[in-house]
Amino acid sequence: MEYKRFENTIVARFDKGEEILENIKKIALAEDIKLASVSALGATNDFTVGVYKVDEKKYYSNEFKGNFEIVSLTGTINTMNDEFYTHIHMSAGNDKGEVFGGHLNRAIISATCEMVINIIDGRVDRYFDEEIGLNLFKF
Amino acid sequence: MEYKRFENTIVARFDKGEEILENIKKIALAEDIKLASVSALGATNDFTVGVYKVDEKKYYSNEFKGNFEIVSLTGTINTMNDEFYTHIHMSAGNDKGEVFGGHLNRAIISATCEMVINIIDGRVDRYFDEEIGLNLFKF
Amino acid sequence: MEYKRFENTIVARFDKGEEILENIKKIALAEDIKLASVSALGATNDFTVGVYKVDEKKYYSNEFKGNFEIVSLTGTINTMNDEFYTHIHMSAGNDKGEVFGGHLNRAIISATCEMVINIIDGRVDRYFDEEIGLNLFKF
Repeated sequence: MEYKRFENTIVARFDKGEEILENIKKIALAEDIKLASVSALGATNDFTVGVYKVDEKKYYSNEFKGNFEIVSLTGTINTMNDEFYTHIHMSAGNDKGEVFGGHLNRAIISATCEMVINIIDGRVDRYFDEEIGLNLFKF
Repeated sequence: MEYKRFENTIVARFDKGEEILENIKKIALAEDIKLASVSALGATNDFTVGVYKVDEKKYYSNEFKGNFEIVSLTGTINTMNDEFYTHIHMSAGNDKGEVFGGHLNRAIISATCEMVINIIDGRVDRYFDEEIGLNLFKF
Repeated sequence: MEYKRFENTIVARFDKGEEILENIKKIALAEDIKLASVSALGATNDFTVGVYKVDEKKYYSNEFKGNFEIVSLTGTINTMNDEFYTHIHMSAGNDKGEVFGGHLNRAIISATCEMVINIIDGRVDRYFDEEIGLNLFKF
């Protein structure tokens, strides 16, 4: 992974074999990012995305392997109890172009990933919401 | 729904039972947004997306119910005849990770929706284009 | 195609019959863009998206025709050997809402395309990576 910061924008390249969420965390900690939006494209050969069943308050996950192009990756970096937090959703197309996605648990880069992080001057923390069962934005 | 504005960036949380387009409108009116780009992730259990048939100049819609993760939500806030306008496309993955989407007509939040709105200092209005049958950007 | 620049943000409309990548290039050259992130929505009736098979170092492509709504279009404009370069991934939903996508090779607009380009004050060039077989970000 390598990246470069231009004022409040970071452009990053994640490399073959690297996991996306781990590398978002590395950049966020190195650059002391408290709040940012994230988008990316790339290629992955192994990823797990979740779907949340609200009535069960539980995530179910789907794992995909093969040649996939990441067609959308969107979300935020922020904090929970002032510690790093990121929440990303991703979708990717297989060799027929069929797209699969959800809440990103894990994605291994197969070729490259090109990410743009827009740092926001501010802070939004999270709290655990008992009714929803998730960590939500706290304003 | 709650949100916070940081200079020209708004970070918002939409809550269970709320409809996305209605809440984009609330924020745009409250903050007097004339032009902005929008992106979000979240979870929905009931959404309708359209597909436009250009030769018929008509939208057809597909309705989806169940546990879905919003994997992409992108578009703009601008104006038509100086009044609020928003145009959003969305896609979401079901419990198998299969992704469905189109022109966003309506989406009810099931868990949370996390949105980032980037306000642009400027204005772009819309006009009704007779040939296309849609309201297009007017420069 | 028409567009307007507001400081470091460009809002663009691509019209029926126009190809997306060609028009991104036109804007980038006219505005001397060296680095930017790109997002868009729209409608296409003819597009080709690729999937890269890393072990073969080869792109395979899927072509789609019909009424499609572009639900995600994300990527960057930058340079390779100081010349214009763009790398975009796209996904689009058909008349049933089923979403297909990958590395964007070509997409013809059927109704309209609404694009936002965020220009980044900086430069990132590319190099050909022998191991991966692709042109990657060089920092």
